[in-house]
Amino acid sequence: MASIFSRIIAGEIPCYKVAEDDKHIAFLDINPVAPGHTLVVPKHEEPYIFNLPDQELADFNIFAKKVAKAVEKAVPCKRVGMTVIGLEVPHAHIHLIPINVESDMSFNKVRPELSAVELQGISSAIAAAYSSLYPEE
Amino acid sequence: MASIFSRIIAGEIPCYKVAEDDKHIAFLDINPVAPGHTLVVPKHEEPYIFNLPDQELADFNIFAKKVAKAVEKAVPCKRVGMTVIGLEVPHAHIHLIPINVESDMSFNKVRPELSAVELQGISSAIAAAYSSLYPEE
Repeated sequence: MASIFSRIIAGEIPCYKVAEDDKHIAFLDINPVAPGHTLVVPKHEEPYIFNLPDQELADFNIFAKKVAKAVEKAVPCKRVGMTVIGLEVPHAHIHLIPINVESDMSFNKVRPELSAVELQGISSAIAAAYSSLYPEE
Repeated sequence: MASIFSRIIAGEIPCYKVAEDDKHIAFLDINPVAPGHTLVVPKHEEPYIFNLPDQELADFNIFAKKVAKAVEKAVPCKRVGMTVIGLEVPHAHIHLIPINVESDMSFNKVRPELSAVELQGISSAIAAAYSSLYPEE
């Protein structure tokens, strides 16, 4: 069965998309650890990030860096942290999380509840930042 | 002032090294979240991972993947997770953490206390796994 991410990529499930290229997509985590928490996903469905071939892993991280720059521009934070856990959804993905202190990265804390309107506003801001940083795409 | 990682790379501070190539080094975190918690560091001192040039970012992640495969071979776990926080030491680094459940990635939990002998044993096991996986290096 296709992963939930493959179904998002196929357009069967909606998402708050922030960026896309031919091989990757980025959209908001709807249960964010912090506002602006973004998932970066290769369109090729591979369960484990460290099983990606070297070139795919390289391209994936370079795309994630571009998305991180857009998140940083759109969401007030000191840094954008990243994490890969890989036990939840069997389709490799990078979590990008805007942080001010180390504990902002924690997955075990109480998460902010964001309305659909707030999520839409954040995704639009990150998408606009991405377009202004990378106008050629 | 040189970062603590640059001082480790220069050999001024000892470490439990598990792997090295001309541009990167990997050694155990001495305050691990889980046994086998490894830090992967580019020798070039750049504070923020997302400021690394694309090719350096790509090479860094490909090296981290090789180290992750060695950690996975040496330390019983379901997966090796990765995280970059970037607020602690101003020198880009990837945390590789052997995990069985999502909460194993948490930086806020009580950490296992490992003796120097235990850390030496784990680093030797990961280094041996790395050498057997990548004998050409």
